[in-house]
Amino acid sequence: MAQVSFIELCRKLVGNAHVISDPAKMVPYITDYRRRFTGKALAVISPGNTREVADIVKLCKLQKIPVVPQGGNTGLVLGSVPDTSGKAVVLSLRRLKRIREIDVANNTMTVEAGCILDDVRKAALDADRLFPLSLASSGSCTIGGNLAANAGGTAVLRYGTARELCLGLEVVTPDGDIWNGLYKLRKNNTGYDLRDLFVGSEGTLGVITAAVLKLFPRPKTQQTAFVALRTPDDALRFLTIAQKFAGFALTTFELMSRYSLELVTKHFPHLLPPLPLDKPYFVLLELCESEPEEQTAARFEKLLQYAIEEDIICDAALAQTLAQSRSMWSLRENISAAQAKEGRNVKHDIAVPTSLFAEFIETTDRLLQHYFPGCRMVTFGHLGDGSLHYNVGAPERVPDDEFLLRQNDINRIVYDSVSRMHGAISAEHGLGALKHGENAGYKSEVEIRMMQQIKKALDPGNLMNPGKVLP
Amino acid sequence: MAQVSFIELCRKLVGNAHVISDPAKMVPYITDYRRRFTGKALAVISPGNTREVADIVKLCKLQKIPVVPQGGNTGLVLGSVPDTSGKAVVLSLRRLKRIREIDVANNTMTVEAGCILDDVRKAALDADRLFPLSLASSGSCTIGGNLAANAGGTAVLRYGTARELCLGLEVVTPDGDIWNGLYKLRKNNTGYDLRDLFVGSEGTLGVITAAVLKLFPRPKTQQTAFVALRTPDDALRFLTIAQKFAGFALTTFELMSRYSLELVTKHFPHLLPPLPLDKPYFVLLELCESEPEEQTAARFEKLLQYAIEEDIICDAALAQTLAQSRSMWSLRENISAAQAKEGRNVKHDIAVPTSLFAEFIETTDRLLQHYFPGCRMVTFGHLGDGSLHYNVGAPERVPDDEFLLRQNDINRIVYDSVSRMHGAISAEHGLGALKHGENAGYKSEVEIRMMQQIKKALDPGNLMNPGKVLP
Repeated sequence: MAQVSFIELCRKLVGNAHVISDPAKMVPYITDYRRRFTGKALAVISPGNTREVADIVKLCKLQKIPVVPQGGNTGLVLGSVPDTSGKAVVLSLRRLKRIREIDVANNTMTVEAGCILDDVRKAALDADRLFPLSLASSGSCTIGGNLAANAGGTAVLRYGTARELCLGLEVVTPDGDIWNGLYKLRKNNTGYDLRDLFVGSEGTLGVITAAVLKLFPRPKTQQTAFVALRTPDDALRFLTIAQKFAGFALTTFELMSRYSLELVTKHFPHLLPPLPLDKPYFVLLELCESEPEEQTAARFEKLLQYAIEEDIICDAALAQTLAQSRSMWSLRENISAAQAKEGRNVKHDIAVPTSLFAEFIETTDRLLQHYFPGCRMVTFGHLGDGSLHYNVGAPERVPDDEFLLRQNDINRIVYDSVSRMHGAISAEHGLGALKHGENAGYKSEVEIRMMQQIKKALDPGNLMNPGKVLP
Repeated sequence: MAQVSFIELCRKLVGNAHVISDPAKMVPYITDYRRRFTGKALAVISPGNTREVADIVKLCKLQKIPVVPQGGNTGLVLGSVPDTSGKAVVLSLRRLKRIREIDVANNTMTVEAGCILDDVRKAALDADRLFPLSLASSGSCTIGGNLAANAGGTAVLRYGTARELCLGLEVVTPDGDIWNGLYKLRKNNTGYDLRDLFVGSEGTLGVITAAVLKLFPRPKTQQTAFVALRTPDDALRFLTIAQKFAGFALTTFELMSRYSLELVTKHFPHLLPPLPLDKPYFVLLELCESEPEEQTAARFEKLLQYAIEEDIICDAALAQTLAQSRSMWSLRENISAAQAKEGRNVKHDIAVPTSLFAEFIETTDRLLQHYFPGCRMVTFGHLGDGSLHYNVGAPERVPDDEFLLRQNDINRIVYDSVSRMHGAISAEHGLGALKHGENAGYKSEVEIRMMQQIKKALDPGNLMNPGKVLP
């Protein structure tokens, strides 16, 4: 039987222990992070190095077997799990977890795709450097997955997304060749930007096996504040002032609706907000500086005082200790967990120009209340970089299941709003198998066609993560 | 005659006045910036808007006429001039010079490709914002050309290259379609990164007609220093310390060999260095801050004092006035002009990992002195971002013409050195028609093949700037 011989060949290439074909043992690899979907796979294969990845991809090409690359499998859009056909293999990169090099003087590190993000951050800190990518799943996501999905997180305002933190890549192409694009350069104009094409392509153009990452000097001080304000428009005005006061020092600027925080204090009652939750919106902001702490603190106080005097913000708490800062962050970081405890809701991860943020929230809230009176908005996110988690919960007394039947109608309202502002229906989660259809509806034909032309040129057999990103 | 009817059609599409077919009048468009090369063209066509660009490209596709897009024609690698076949048209974007929008709250501006870089910078300043791209030809280069070539310059250390300063593009594709990719978003994970594919592709994949650019808060203070030191290795140590002291505030870190500066003072005797030119190397560095001037100055003085005490630098001058700062910058900015006055030399625009900079200079200098004893090194550039203008002048008493006959041998030595360090033979100038052959020799087959696959997929007729970038 063809499958048997294929699996036998895989075992020869990567070793018996690293090929799983027992359906029961495959479950964690074929089930998505939020446990909404379980696909099927021929096998889960875990090569031990780049050479073995290339061997497997080459074999799959020969036998026309689709390949689903997978890192920590923490994606939110079904990008790293196979469909239900059972024809594909899952190619796990988790065994490629060496930190190959830290070049302190060049401010770079070269890491393999399977390194856990927290381990990458820790290795950088050990070398007195900062790798700033920061997101909720950092304890289990891998850097390869972060790059494949162009992860965002809470420090994008200052440091950019995963794309902007990457200087070079090693990639196994759909042909099973190894591309050594591990350039450690900040300027390199020697041809098309293949790096940025692979970053964010969610495994549909090849398999990222290693990357050169940018490192930064560790900031000397870090100051956190928690601010209450009335409207998203005031939040935007506050952002503009904060950028003027603090420039590059402004690292984080996160908006949270009162209801998001009420969910946190309801489900995690030990988490205490530093201000009463009696205003409609709150902002968590952070300044990181290379200057001494007193100066940053003085500047921060001046900013907050000015914003209060100008009546842009209502109240502010400046963390005096690391513990206070952590407790402010806990409120922000537990919003997702709190809403999960509360029940299910319709989630969106959208981006609009920062200047249209307030208008987006106001008009979309109004439309949703019109069609779904009483729906509860878990609105929070990275106002500083123009992206938002804009989640819609059922009105009180309406069961979640019933509400979720209207998911498509809710999406339509939200995405139409996004589209009117030439925004993005996926800011940082990617498209995977979950959103590519809707996305195609909002993109121009020209853009979709160019994407298809590139996909076909690099992967004519459509074997790399088929059914993802493109419709 | 086919040509006549084609040109007549062009005249109908863009207006009589905007099609030049008189060979004498075409000269400035078909001659490169350094006046080393003059090609031939069927005509120079200057559309007035994106629609007209699309019409011309569509017509050229129908009639199989190659298109050479051109901005300010200030490129250094023959990327914006046609070859000598006389088959191509030059498509000048200079009439597309509207600043379409400045969105202050979103920190973006939307500009057309033909805007002069200085005009873009000025418009940003008028809106109390900074557009940081800064290079020698800023008075005549266009933003479309800057993006097509992924321009670099003196502020890359802090703000990145043109690629990193661009959020969205409008492009006329080789099919003559208009792609509206003018996203004003900092996070956008809705498909392949077409933007970064067009940026740096030197007009070979399509014509950039407009772009969304990132703006930044204007720094409050700007402080410049001029430092003398002994070796590139010390310069590197100094860079590491400066980054630790100043973090993101460090905007510029330019290395200059003594000989580079001696050429400046020889040919521009009114330019006076702030320190005696009695050390082998000098560094121009600048801190930009959002904090008050006294604080930046104090920090800067502390950094310089520490570096002197540690014997990393020999001497330093901190500009006390804007005039002093300008005069320091003049020395740096006139190196190219001074070497042109001195005669011709063999120029390189290379990048290596910053950590290997000193080793690169030392070993390559030694090899060049071995094969070309007495050759004079005009070594200067952006040490902070790892790129270098590494120009080789004839030894005294050897005529330039004779020396330039050995150009290929000199290139070989320099590029072999670059290649051993996995560097780039073009850091910021691109490849154009000048370097793509040599570049292909240093790239892996895998990388070249992927580039060719993409080119063929998007431009199967090979009509967009043929003979550039790819071999």
